[in-house]
Amino acid sequence: MATIELLTDENATPEACAVFDDIRATRQTDYVNNFWRAMANDPATMTACWDRLKQVMGPGSLDPLMKEMIYIAVSVANGCEYCVHSHTASAAAKGMSAEMHAELLAVIGLAAQTNALATAMQVPVDDRFKS
Amino acid sequence: MATIELLTDENATPEACAVFDDIRATRQTDYVNNFWRAMANDPATMTACWDRLKQVMGPGSLDPLMKEMIYIAVSVANGCEYCVHSHTASAAAKGMSAEMHAELLAVIGLAAQTNALATAMQVPVDDRFKS
Amino acid sequence: MATIELLTDENATPEACAVFDDIRATRQTDYVNNFWRAMANDPATMTACWDRLKQVMGPGSLDPLMKEMIYIAVSVANGCEYCVHSHTASAAAKGMSAEMHAELLAVIGLAAQTNALATAMQVPVDDRFKS
Amino acid sequence: MATIELLTDENATPEACAVFDDIRATRQTDYVNNFWRAMANDPATMTACWDRLKQVMGPGSLDPLMKEMIYIAVSVANGCEYCVHSHTASAAAKGMSAEMHAELLAVIGLAAQTNALATAMQVPVDDRFKS
Amino acid sequence: MATIELLTDENATPEACAVFDDIRATRQTDYVNNFWRAMANDPATMTACWDRLKQVMGPGSLDPLMKEMIYIAVSVANGCEYCVHSHTASAAAKGMSAEMHAELLAVIGLAAQTNALATAMQVPVDDRFKS
Amino acid sequence: MATIELLTDENATPEACAVFDDIRATRQTDYVNNFWRAMANDPATMTACWDRLKQVMGPGSLDPLMKEMIYIAVSVANGCEYCVHSHTASAAAKGMSAEMHAELLAVIGLAAQTNALATAMQVPVDDRFKS
Repeated sequence: MATIELLTDENATPEACAVFDDIRATRQTDYVNNFWRAMANDPATMTACWDRLKQVMGPGSLDPLMKEMIYIAVSVANGCEYCVHSHTASAAAKGMSAEMHAELLAVIGLAAQTNALATAMQVPVDDRFKS
Repeated sequence: MATIELLTDENATPEACAVFDDIRATRQTDYVNNFWRAMANDPATMTACWDRLKQVMGPGSLDPLMKEMIYIAVSVANGCEYCVHSHTASAAAKGMSAEMHAELLAVIGLAAQTNALATAMQVPVDDRFKS
Repeated sequence: MATIELLTDENATPEACAVFDDIRATRQTDYVNNFWRAMANDPATMTACWDRLKQVMGPGSLDPLMKEMIYIAVSVANGCEYCVHSHTASAAAKGMSAEMHAELLAVIGLAAQTNALATAMQVPVDDRFKS
Repeated sequence: MATIELLTDENATPEACAVFDDIRATRQTDYVNNFWRAMANDPATMTACWDRLKQVMGPGSLDPLMKEMIYIAVSVANGCEYCVHSHTASAAAKGMSAEMHAELLAVIGLAAQTNALATAMQVPVDDRFKS
Repeated sequence: MATIELLTDENATPEACAVFDDIRATRQTDYVNNFWRAMANDPATMTACWDRLKQVMGPGSLDPLMKEMIYIAVSVANGCEYCVHSHTASAAAKGMSAEMHAELLAVIGLAAQTNALATAMQVPVDDRFKS
Repeated sequence: MATIELLTDENATPEACAVFDDIRATRQTDYVNNFWRAMANDPATMTACWDRLKQVMGPGSLDPLMKEMIYIAVSVANGCEYCVHSHTASAAAKGMSAEMHAELLAVIGLAAQTNALATAMQVPVDDRFKS
């Protein structure tokens, strides 16, 4: 259960419905996922967040699949169940193979381990990494 | 200051020195960074960790630069100062451009934001993300 | 499922039951929520925690609703599902409006984003913030 | 040391300098803090972030000081040294008294403790918190 | 639901099945828990992880029960629901009493609180702790 | 630099000074570390925290050294630099050997890795772990 109502096209504001429509058009699907139905309670934040997401996650120096995988990495480290599920689904839809998923997880696991070790040992940053 | 001594080639064990040598050979540099000098206090864990790192971070379905960027993403989310510095330096050495760095940061920032929002709203995972 | 038994008024110790009673009297409700039924397994920690909670969350320089909202913010950042739910319910009971909730979430989301960006860029603290 | 250059008014782009100017005008000070000088490396993200910050942190159902205190709470839980310093300074500038600061810290500490306990015991969310 | 298939003895690779068998032999039970059935999708990481776990969690300067309790502490702080459950079960199987569990939780809760307070106050590390 | 003044015996309140004295008597040293000098700004929270610490960290089903090591584990996972340093020093003072420290770090690193993997794969908790 959410701490906030998941709004439908019937009870969301026109501003929120316009974002629903843009999500549908951008993704070429009728489905609007629960995150946005929850976000619809605050149309201003919803709009800012969706606009930003479209800008950030599109093609650039990094391709969209790579960005989804980075998104998964952050979501895992932050322990966000919803985001791990939704972005793993997005990455799969964008072509992440089982091999790529396995390598992503291996890097995430290794990084988590060395993050913990570096913190436990309070390793000082090498001067050469500071330039 | 570290919570553990940073070992030199003089006071590390032969097993740890062998890892130092392999680090030098693999990276083609004489420099061994502080993390490994701290890890040298426990040669068994050091060896397991270094062997794993060579296996995980090498070429595969994801290229090494991509893996470094995923490593940065995890390290940022885990708040590991040392790892953020060392892997940003590694990524730069592997060709991360300023544009790629900017896009990486934009994805990390956006993910952190939506992770927090999804957690705050306790959004239930859509059935379609579960298959 | 909890990793520990949720104790009832029948199987909790007298010390734990005394806390149950004080919770009921303080909140003016018969209901004792699951957190305290789990905490009842260790009456000493339960008592210390409940006494502290009464002292900390009462009126002061900050009003109780404001404190609940700060509690939500911490719970979100720590990814505690139980606490996000229970303190969102508490805040609502203390008068948090939909607008206040929306603003709280907007601040939490923004802070999470800039926390990540500041960590990723390892921004040095300005001298003027240190005094 | 940052992982990115802190840009001055001389080497930042015109778009970034326009944000510097807006920061100065909004805060009525000549000083632009390090976070924004680091963000200036990516003018698009910088602009989006600053625009959002102005919108979110201004007066509303919650007053600006309250928002700064929520920001501190999130920054502490996320372990962001820079943000803890900068937002504690901002809150002080907006009138946070020593008593308010003490109460803020007491709530943060208590929440961190019960977050950990609820997670350790995996307390199931009460049905009544789900509506 | 997992983001990856939980493999059975029928559809896992021979390499993964060999780890299943070693898990059964080591633990003297027929049961293989879900974590390893998920890990079986990447036999190389699975093998490295299982080998490391056998090495790290066995007897040494710290006894295996103590190690399980440290594992729980880390898992709680990282907010990993699965690991809190599985390692609490393991610790119980290795003889953790209700008193030991209560003391473990008390330490975890106290540490979480003072971690937050030290971070909020940005307490500088005492010189004497650095040697 | 702290976000709060580190109080001396001269400018702390009598209530805070009484805690300073109890710290000295309990630890049999003249030295009062920075955490308590910062906490002295809020004598009520300081007293509650110190009383709790004496109660929790003393001998019980777990010995004091074991508790210090659990404290380190939590502090590492929470990324608290101050607490990692101070409790590593405390553990050393209570007899933690280099071997014990190495084993502690190995468990912390392994747990961090499997926490991340379990979260990334969203492994469902086995029924048998729920009883």
